[in-house]
Amino acid sequence: MNAPVKLEELEVGYDVPAAIGMSENDIQTPCLVLDLDALERNIVKMGNFAKEMGVRHRIHGKMHKSVDVALLQEKLGGSCGVCCQKVSEAEVFARGGIKDVLVSNQVRDPAKIDRLARLPKLGARTICCVDDVANVADLSAAAQKHGTEIECLVEIDCGAGRCGVTTTPEVVEIAKAIDAAPGLKFSGIQAYQGAMQHMDEYEDRKAKIDIAVAMVKDAVDALKAEGLECDIVGGGGTGSYYFEGNSGVYNELQCGSYAFMDADYGRIHDKDGNRIDQGEWENALFILTSVMSHAKAEKAICDAGLKAQSVDSGLPFIYGRDDVEYIKCSDEHGVISDPKGVLKVNEKLKLVPGHCDPTCNVHDWYVGVRNGKVETIWPVSARGKAY
Amino acid sequence: MNAPVKLEELEVGYDVPAAIGMSENDIQTPCLVLDLDALERNIVKMGNFAKEMGVRHRIHGKMHKSVDVALLQEKLGGSCGVCCQKVSEAEVFARGGIKDVLVSNQVRDPAKIDRLARLPKLGARTICCVDDVANVADLSAAAQKHGTEIECLVEIDCGAGRCGVTTTPEVVEIAKAIDAAPGLKFSGIQAYQGAMQHMDEYEDRKAKIDIAVAMVKDAVDALKAEGLECDIVGGGGTGSYYFEGNSGVYNELQCGSYAFMDADYGRIHDKDGNRIDQGEWENALFILTSVMSHAKAEKAICDAGLKAQSVDSGLPFIYGRDDVEYIKCSDEHGVISDPKGVLKVNEKLKLVPGHCDPTCNVHDWYVGVRNGKVETIWPVSARGKAY
Repeated sequence: MNAPVKLEELEVGYDVPAAIGMSENDIQTPCLVLDLDALERNIVKMGNFAKEMGVRHRIHGKMHKSVDVALLQEKLGGSCGVCCQKVSEAEVFARGGIKDVLVSNQVRDPAKIDRLARLPKLGARTICCVDDVANVADLSAAAQKHGTEIECLVEIDCGAGRCGVTTTPEVVEIAKAIDAAPGLKFSGIQAYQGAMQHMDEYEDRKAKIDIAVAMVKDAVDALKAEGLECDIVGGGGTGSYYFEGNSGVYNELQCGSYAFMDADYGRIHDKDGNRIDQGEWENALFILTSVMSHAKAEKAICDAGLKAQSVDSGLPFIYGRDDVEYIKCSDEHGVISDPKGVLKVNEKLKLVPGHCDPTCNVHDWYVGVRNGKVETIWPVSARGKAY
Repeated sequence: MNAPVKLEELEVGYDVPAAIGMSENDIQTPCLVLDLDALERNIVKMGNFAKEMGVRHRIHGKMHKSVDVALLQEKLGGSCGVCCQKVSEAEVFARGGIKDVLVSNQVRDPAKIDRLARLPKLGARTICCVDDVANVADLSAAAQKHGTEIECLVEIDCGAGRCGVTTTPEVVEIAKAIDAAPGLKFSGIQAYQGAMQHMDEYEDRKAKIDIAVAMVKDAVDALKAEGLECDIVGGGGTGSYYFEGNSGVYNELQCGSYAFMDADYGRIHDKDGNRIDQGEWENALFILTSVMSHAKAEKAICDAGLKAQSVDSGLPFIYGRDDVEYIKCSDEHGVISDPKGVLKVNEKLKLVPGHCDPTCNVHDWYVGVRNGKVETIWPVSARGKAY
């Protein structure tokens, strides 16, 4: 599944939007382009942050769904493994050579539990989350059936409002059930506060994470009193990693978007009131698009619409340009305000997508560019892996 | 590319979410499910409408991106061909056996023009749109290079605000250039009013199409005066087909969403003030999803989030249920309000997506169901074909 792509077997434009060595100007659009220099700098920087704070970094593979990017994060950023949200994604990462995979989500469907229990046979440490004691017996039965071990984290909902329990007694009850179940190992706590990541102000985000840290600390202490140690206390995203990393409670970060950046994350502010895409992180991910109609003087139409991106978190912005603006998105078209009529048909623009995760999920390829040349082409290995 | 899927070579859950003959209850989620009875009734109904109005129906393949659905629309609905928005989609339809393909869009990039000019070699009548006289020479050169014929429609922007010219003299100028260009054939006009399709009230939509029809009629008459006949005058969508079909000016409809329906189209009203998903068309497309966490009494979490759908036109609704509501969508999760706590973990729900087109584009498969059994599994043949 993740064998190297044999480019000589593919015709540019049919199955891949570029060929290695070609000029950036010749890439077929719309497609995802990675600025490899910026990507590498982001990865190294977050790796250093984690090291300085004395915590591990389990990068979030659900963002990019790419084995190649995950391996780069391991190599340059020292990541300890991958987290992802679906068993089918975990299979892709394990087959691609990632040795430590956390499904940072609940696995409840019998067929999915069976697949999860087979994952260790691919050579990967296999971890999932649990928020219901009724799930424990099913996971245990599957692990025993396949003669494998599934490590389990109890998921705490520390403010995201999705999966997870909300009280320490529930955490302890589930942890004890995991600890007692054959084929399972209790490995700690999952506590990702997803809802605060995009709050604009640093202090507002800090206040939310303070609450999360207190909840998690209470649970960790209660577990310890029961003789249950947390190997992993995991959480933290691009908008909060410094809080969890310095908390003294969390020991594993789970950042994803920092590597690519997007418009929605870029807008939030750091401690000093600066946008985080103006210093903290660089835009490394772009949707390359071409102008394909300019029949009206003040309006250009480009070829990247809803099928080249997700607009759930707002429209993309046009990178490096303040004279033109992406103002409307329909299925296959983007409308660009061009008040001075400066754009030409076939001119290429780089869009910073509103939300990187679901945008990456509609593409098949990342075209990696350096110094104006295509250096690499990576498949979006787990694209569409939603099971 | 569109060879029949050999299901025996695939393991359910890895590459496909179902197997033919299995119970609807055993389908892996999240995935797209088609109610084949409803789909067939929608297709037959629109075919009959077109016939009664005395116009052709060139179904819009960009909506479903499926060769199998297009062939069904040909067989049951008498469609005359397919329109789509991208050259890469057109290739998929042509390779899949569609003999008459319109790229209802501009084709400007040199590599894409070259691919378009090769399309007739796949056995398909090949048509594209033009809104700039500068495009004519490029299309002509490519057709001559490959010894093929590209038919061209002049695109009129009759209110959608995207591609297309807005005055009759521009239409005539481009049509004459096409007519004079070797390798090209002037075939008529493209005039799809996309912006009014989702206006709630019938009379509001009618007012917009009246303007479009007047613009198009003026152009058709002016072309006739120049000796240029329009073989195709194309346009019309699910929210307007009766206006164009009865206009005496348009002769080809281009409806897409009627076949599947979605929440955003479903909300608009017909002549009698009824929602069009309550009589005119049936919901045939669903995102099948499973409850995978219910750690809070009044809130269930399902496994269909932003990577299983596009929410550009609003959230999905839960089909056939008024006791539970899909209230929030994040990357991999949907939050369902369940005030009475009636949902159980692993219970399946059918979501009607907000917008069918970009939702279909994130999936690899349609699982066709009849009488509770999986009857067919169709690839989303042109998924991701954005070039």
